[in-house]
Amino acid sequence: MTSALTEQLAGIVGAAHVITDGDVLDGRSIDHTGRYRGHAAALVRPGSTDEVAAVLRACRDAGVNVTVQGGRTSLVAGTVPEHDDVLLSTERLRDLGDVDVEERRVRVGAGVTLAEVQRAAAAAGLVFGVDLAARDSATVGGMASTNAGGLRTVCYGNMGEQVIGLDVVLPDGTVVHRHSQVRSDNTGYDLASLFVGAEGTLGVITALDLRLHPLPRHRVTAICGFADLDSLIATGRAFRDMEGIAALELIDARASALTAEHAGVAAPVDGAWQLLIELSGDTDLTDRLADALEDADLCGEPAVGVDTTAQQRLWQVREAVAEVLGVYGPPLKFDVSLPLSSIQEFATDAVALVAEHAPEAIPVLFGHIGEGNLHLNIVRFDLTGEDERALYSAMMTLIARHGGNVSSEHGVGTRKRDYLAMARTEADIATMRAVKAAFDPTGYLNRAVLFS
Amino acid sequence: MTSALTEQLAGIVGAAHVITDGDVLDGRSIDHTGRYRGHAAALVRPGSTDEVAAVLRACRDAGVNVTVQGGRTSLVAGTVPEHDDVLLSTERLRDLGDVDVEERRVRVGAGVTLAEVQRAAAAAGLVFGVDLAARDSATVGGMASTNAGGLRTVCYGNMGEQVIGLDVVLPDGTVVHRHSQVRSDNTGYDLASLFVGAEGTLGVITALDLRLHPLPRHRVTAICGFADLDSLIATGRAFRDMEGIAALELIDARASALTAEHAGVAAPVDGAWQLLIELSGDTDLTDRLADALEDADLCGEPAVGVDTTAQQRLWQVREAVAEVLGVYGPPLKFDVSLPLSSIQEFATDAVALVAEHAPEAIPVLFGHIGEGNLHLNIVRFDLTGEDERALYSAMMTLIARHGGNVSSEHGVGTRKRDYLAMARTEADIATMRAVKAAFDPTGYLNRAVLFS
Repeated sequence: MTSALTEQLAGIVGAAHVITDGDVLDGRSIDHTGRYRGHAAALVRPGSTDEVAAVLRACRDAGVNVTVQGGRTSLVAGTVPEHDDVLLSTERLRDLGDVDVEERRVRVGAGVTLAEVQRAAAAAGLVFGVDLAARDSATVGGMASTNAGGLRTVCYGNMGEQVIGLDVVLPDGTVVHRHSQVRSDNTGYDLASLFVGAEGTLGVITALDLRLHPLPRHRVTAICGFADLDSLIATGRAFRDMEGIAALELIDARASALTAEHAGVAAPVDGAWQLLIELSGDTDLTDRLADALEDADLCGEPAVGVDTTAQQRLWQVREAVAEVLGVYGPPLKFDVSLPLSSIQEFATDAVALVAEHAPEAIPVLFGHIGEGNLHLNIVRFDLTGEDERALYSAMMTLIARHGGNVSSEHGVGTRKRDYLAMARTEADIATMRAVKAAFDPTGYLNRAVLFS
Repeated sequence: MTSALTEQLAGIVGAAHVITDGDVLDGRSIDHTGRYRGHAAALVRPGSTDEVAAVLRACRDAGVNVTVQGGRTSLVAGTVPEHDDVLLSTERLRDLGDVDVEERRVRVGAGVTLAEVQRAAAAAGLVFGVDLAARDSATVGGMASTNAGGLRTVCYGNMGEQVIGLDVVLPDGTVVHRHSQVRSDNTGYDLASLFVGAEGTLGVITALDLRLHPLPRHRVTAICGFADLDSLIATGRAFRDMEGIAALELIDARASALTAEHAGVAAPVDGAWQLLIELSGDTDLTDRLADALEDADLCGEPAVGVDTTAQQRLWQVREAVAEVLGVYGPPLKFDVSLPLSSIQEFATDAVALVAEHAPEAIPVLFGHIGEGNLHLNIVRFDLTGEDERALYSAMMTLIARHGGNVSSEHGVGTRKRDYLAMARTEADIATMRAVKAAFDPTGYLNRAVLFS
């Protein structure tokens, strides 16, 4: 990167917001597993949409690639630069507007965290539709760019379903404001949906209008134990499209063993498999839950929480899983979606595959069973290099063989770009590339992700 | 059109499916109001996705423009050709797959009608999420291309929210198959959303995977009367985000007078304004409806239907409105969405504007108040030419002045293409044009619609 560009960027965002310190850049150029590492020439922190536009234009004109960073919680190495990139951070885009209680919406800057949006919604007596473990770090800009899912997808949908407007800066520096004030608008291409899930390859989202939801008056939470996965799936199938379903989370025995050992959180029920079920709504739901569980093949009685304290205790069982995955170092992560009818077989085959490649490792299964999602995490995993890649590749093939998708909600990023053809057809990928070329002919924006 | 192209098209679809009869073409080249008329050189009826692809390639190579036609129920002249177009009809794409009850989805050809999908869903004990008056003619391909709304949007969303997969032929003849077998898929651009609402300008949708919903076990329907629009809006506001809301339809006194006179359907309640409310769900809803109406400022008692017969009688009040709009010839239609807070003022101003331009006409208001939608229909309307355009234009300006959108659910078509700039910014339209150019560089597909 030339000193002329550094000066130009400093002129746009202020010298304090162009950082070239090597330690800072190194820390920003690696993913959380340490497996993906790149190199950045500078970190630039624009303070407004117009500054983002000016930074993009300057970098494009100078032939310098740009990698966008939000909360850097990507699980697919979605924010790791290639070589000498400018890192464009959204961390200063922190406007958090007043909640419009009447229209149930709020406008927020891309750099606002999920937890901050959740708190603002709660203060207004409303609820935001997405929740996930990285809530204190993940920013709404990144979450929209990856169409993040999480614990509430079964109820409210993914991040894309919450986005009702946005400001986005295109690779050529054009700013598109798309903020309809009405709930119904049928005037041409749904550009917002195009940027959602595009992983920053088509533009930089700088602000969003987010939908908020009424706070349900009643809530009931339960954890049920099952002797086998098939019984759990049968119950999940009965609940996933039920009115009022608010969460449907699977946890396997290996996950429970880890939380018992490392977080002091024991499974509250018998059985190798646990299913957390939550219903919410405007009427009392305890009876509906009991009725729906009548035919379930449970191990013993379910643990039911009818008040907030008991519910939080049950949720702690699920939250603890995310906390202990890293106790032996970064796990190898897979984020799979499958038809419900394939989950049992896939789980058996996946565990066998891990045993074959890495006998000392612990394959942990949990996930959002409402969407057929499994987060397979291989804990105590110490393969590296070719050995690691061989298992990764074999698992991706196994997923495809069972009719599954290689990314349920984490996105493609750098990690899965070579496996995109397992999820999309050749014509489909060619069309995506044509869209990318139309927006970013030189391909300078987020070039490491999505495409090989 | 050259005879060489006619022969080439006959070779693709069979001679019986290339129609050049002048009467047929004339009937296909005019919209339902008679206000928009074009000219077609041939009607071509491909029988498969591959035939659609071959037809598109042949026309593009010959430099002939193509206009796509489904059920031709567009209310914005969305299927009227320009000059010497080939009309590509989806009427032979009539495959209707088996309903997948487990995964709640069905694959259908673009030429299947809404009513056929509704019947297939009902036979499987499920429900399709979109309903509208033109159900016997409107095809799912056209409905997806215009992102049609209707009577159930408040509950299930528009057509786009029902589309979970599609086959689409791009303007260059590429066929994109996008049919994920899983519910959760985060692998790149959401191309399906791009084709939904694109009004056929980016490609021809030939088949769709449609989401189906569980059939609610309980349903309660009511029509409430109000002395003034403000009271109705206050009640609509309370209901629109309520759990279980299934329909929320406004009908004004002029509409009621027309249905009483021409359809023998009288308003079942007092008051100049009627609101049809329906709740559905898995628990009995009669009490919830009564509770929610406790604070409403009603004229007399609501008419409540708890059984199917009584509910159908109430729905007949709403359905009759659509039936009588044309009794004095084609009405002038506006499809407006507004913030709820603007509806009262807009309605007053709109009625005054009609009185000024066309004193003999009857401005009828009805619509889906859950989305802030008003269908303003000017009945007994006989202005033509410049006079008609002057009122149309003045109304569009009035809509924009009240913070409304010029197309709530009908789309842009030919009718509103000159008003697109009232709904989208310059950068937004430029981005849409760039997408169009990337897909269709010569602009030969559906060139009459969306853009000026």
